[in-house]
Amino acid sequence: MVLVNFKCYLEATGDRAVQLAKYAEQVSKKFDVTVAVAPQTADLRLVSQQTKIPVFAQHIDPIKPGSGTGHVLAESVLEAGACGVLINHSERRLEAGIIEDTVTRARGLKLTTVVCANTSAIAAAVASLGPDMIAVEPPELIGSGIAVSKAKPEIITDTVSRIRRINSDVVILTGAGITSGEDVKEALRLGTQGVLVASGIVKAKNQAAAIEDLAGACRQVGK
Amino acid sequence: MVLVNFKCYLEATGDRAVQLAKYAEQVSKKFDVTVAVAPQTADLRLVSQQTKIPVFAQHIDPIKPGSGTGHVLAESVLEAGACGVLINHSERRLEAGIIEDTVTRARGLKLTTVVCANTSAIAAAVASLGPDMIAVEPPELIGSGIAVSKAKPEIITDTVSRIRRINSDVVILTGAGITSGEDVKEALRLGTQGVLVASGIVKAKNQAAAIEDLAGACRQVGK
Amino acid sequence: MVLVNFKCYLEATGDRAVQLAKYAEQVSKKFDVTVAVAPQTADLRLVSQQTKIPVFAQHIDPIKPGSGTGHVLAESVLEAGACGVLINHSERRLEAGIIEDTVTRARGLKLTTVVCANTSAIAAAVASLGPDMIAVEPPELIGSGIAVSKAKPEIITDTVSRIRRINSDVVILTGAGITSGEDVKEALRLGTQGVLVASGIVKAKNQAAAIEDLAGACRQVGK
Amino acid sequence: MVLVNFKCYLEATGDRAVQLAKYAEQVSKKFDVTVAVAPQTADLRLVSQQTKIPVFAQHIDPIKPGSGTGHVLAESVLEAGACGVLINHSERRLEAGIIEDTVTRARGLKLTTVVCANTSAIAAAVASLGPDMIAVEPPELIGSGIAVSKAKPEIITDTVSRIRRINSDVVILTGAGITSGEDVKEALRLGTQGVLVASGIVKAKNQAAAIEDLAGACRQVGK
Repeated sequence: MVLVNFKCYLEATGDRAVQLAKYAEQVSKKFDVTVAVAPQTADLRLVSQQTKIPVFAQHIDPIKPGSGTGHVLAESVLEAGACGVLINHSERRLEAGIIEDTVTRARGLKLTTVVCANTSAIAAAVASLGPDMIAVEPPELIGSGIAVSKAKPEIITDTVSRIRRINSDVVILTGAGITSGEDVKEALRLGTQGVLVASGIVKAKNQAAAIEDLAGACRQVGK
Repeated sequence: MVLVNFKCYLEATGDRAVQLAKYAEQVSKKFDVTVAVAPQTADLRLVSQQTKIPVFAQHIDPIKPGSGTGHVLAESVLEAGACGVLINHSERRLEAGIIEDTVTRARGLKLTTVVCANTSAIAAAVASLGPDMIAVEPPELIGSGIAVSKAKPEIITDTVSRIRRINSDVVILTGAGITSGEDVKEALRLGTQGVLVASGIVKAKNQAAAIEDLAGACRQVGK
Repeated sequence: MVLVNFKCYLEATGDRAVQLAKYAEQVSKKFDVTVAVAPQTADLRLVSQQTKIPVFAQHIDPIKPGSGTGHVLAESVLEAGACGVLINHSERRLEAGIIEDTVTRARGLKLTTVVCANTSAIAAAVASLGPDMIAVEPPELIGSGIAVSKAKPEIITDTVSRIRRINSDVVILTGAGITSGEDVKEALRLGTQGVLVASGIVKAKNQAAAIEDLAGACRQVGK
Repeated sequence: MVLVNFKCYLEATGDRAVQLAKYAEQVSKKFDVTVAVAPQTADLRLVSQQTKIPVFAQHIDPIKPGSGTGHVLAESVLEAGACGVLINHSERRLEAGIIEDTVTRARGLKLTTVVCANTSAIAAAVASLGPDMIAVEPPELIGSGIAVSKAKPEIITDTVSRIRRINSDVVILTGAGITSGEDVKEALRLGTQGVLVASGIVKAKNQAAAIEDLAGACRQVGK
């Protein structure tokens, strides 16, 4: 699985979010690999309507329907077409209790949860909170173009090992610095089930080529 | 002006957000009164596309395009059709510096800013930060059904007076507990230029009738 | 072990913090039981100087020495006589990453860490972060006078079981609603090694008697 | 007036906080100038007991006595000997509503309030909240060694002018980058009544000489 985090890049906002999601959809079909996208909240519905790939919100708050001006209600992203949520990204870190509450809220609505973790200890901690997926992202490599799977493979293997002692089901994604198919292959070899990628695709001169490179690598390993 | 804050009410989420915005649009035309709406972020584009009334975001972050996973980029709500933003609601209070930064960011994109203030002192403080509008909302009356314009008219007049010493241009809205046309008339008589309303309309048994009552009152005073 | 959280009660501020700590010291000697106290930051040095029992800070920030106006530097509480820190109390919840950073910072200075957890899932999560102690405190029972060890014993046993699968060394404290020696005995029977108590002692008409009741119960079970 | 913010520098923690405060006291007597200090919370009582100069807390929370684990109660710093509080420093920015609540809480206990402001707009905003003093500190100059009074005098004069239109009584301090007596003289010439200084004194090779230079300059201008 490749999950593309659109962050707040203009190259992946509004119409350009749709364009990028369509590239992801084409590649997904071509290689028969799951390519999911996480556009900004304001773009969730647009992207969901115009593509058939899985769409994730970049954040939700664990509030219930009612007041809560300015927060992101789980039901609102669900109705907008999201099938899951990404939370606790290093750019939007959450209180431990809020992570638990959000995972619970999302599960109640059958939204898939991807919880980001900066370190292997946090990944292990998060594994106790019952998310569907954990994305391991050393923050010093985010946006660096240096793949964690190459620069610090021991972080990935250590994290996988720590998570598995606690939670045998959770899907593990490798994040931070992923830019090439080689990075993806390495991430899969190290025992994770996919990658979380952002600038490596969003900021690529050729987004379509970049996403094809990554998804193609998944396909080759998958065979 | 009547600004309807949809908050995170299910009665104003997704398709129901569109329905409520259409009621607002009909009433706006009927009485030639500005009725604006503030739906959730995920619903901004849908509501903007299906109505022609002013649409406000309930929150934006003052970040620039780039990283910022899980935040609300000003450009994203603008491209989704919003013409303004509501910030610092008592359910989403912001640091003073963030209010200034957000007003500046919004102004750069020609997004109208409505800054909420809990007290007359905060309203006066906010007036120094240069927003387009200030909404005065004593939090103890929010959602109470008791209109601030009736229960505590001196808060409104005191606030208007304090704001005007600092800022002669800013539009002042009365919020908290507004449920009827009478409340609106009183708010306008006290020197404010409109109302910010949420549960009084969103949770009304008959949303269309409720919004008609409020907008109609604006019209009568305006004559 | 009995850890008394002074919170921000006036009955445990300044000179009254010293008085309460002296009661704790007397009882500690009488029963040969560890009774530790967690006064407010401003009272740490005073309490440390006037008693010989373990003194915990109620919070530290994981910042390094330098700037950081208004934060609590680990070195400052250490130099003030604290031997440990309490963090992530339900009244001061922290981001998951901050908990890890704080535990690491404290360990570097040999400050004992007590991390509070609202639920068994959070307790298990926290166990992965390597604290010295975990205090389990269902927030709905805090200050209630209803002991978690009586009202919800299964929360305690479930939590102990979940923590032990991950971490065999961490000391587990039962918190929330503890007011009597019976509550303490029950907490120890359920497999925890001590209690975290606040209003049950601080707000007692007779603080000395209350603390004696709790510490005496520890002693009886310890035999 | 010279207010020395000790921040979280080790050079101004514990015993070294007392030493630095004693230098301040000596200089204060020598020049008959008010030199106040803002040590860390854990050092407030120690510094208050060993010197007779005004002692400010670096932060308080606007909570009332009671629960509030890990927060800073106004009464606790008052009983520890503080006569005032510094809030909203750019290293600890607060919600607008929290600033108002904290000023109100402090006033109720006759604690002097110094509210920091990053910009002239925030300074003007804060002036509406009724603090005793406002410290103007462009964050880009904090710790830079480049005095705002020299580098950006127009920020100071503009800020003074904006504050005075709203509040004629508040004492205005110049902060950020102050390191020499010349900087102080310039700050006073620009219409402010004192300086807020941190690294310029705390990190000086000779703290005593640094503080003497600054306070001496106040004296010369004062004549």
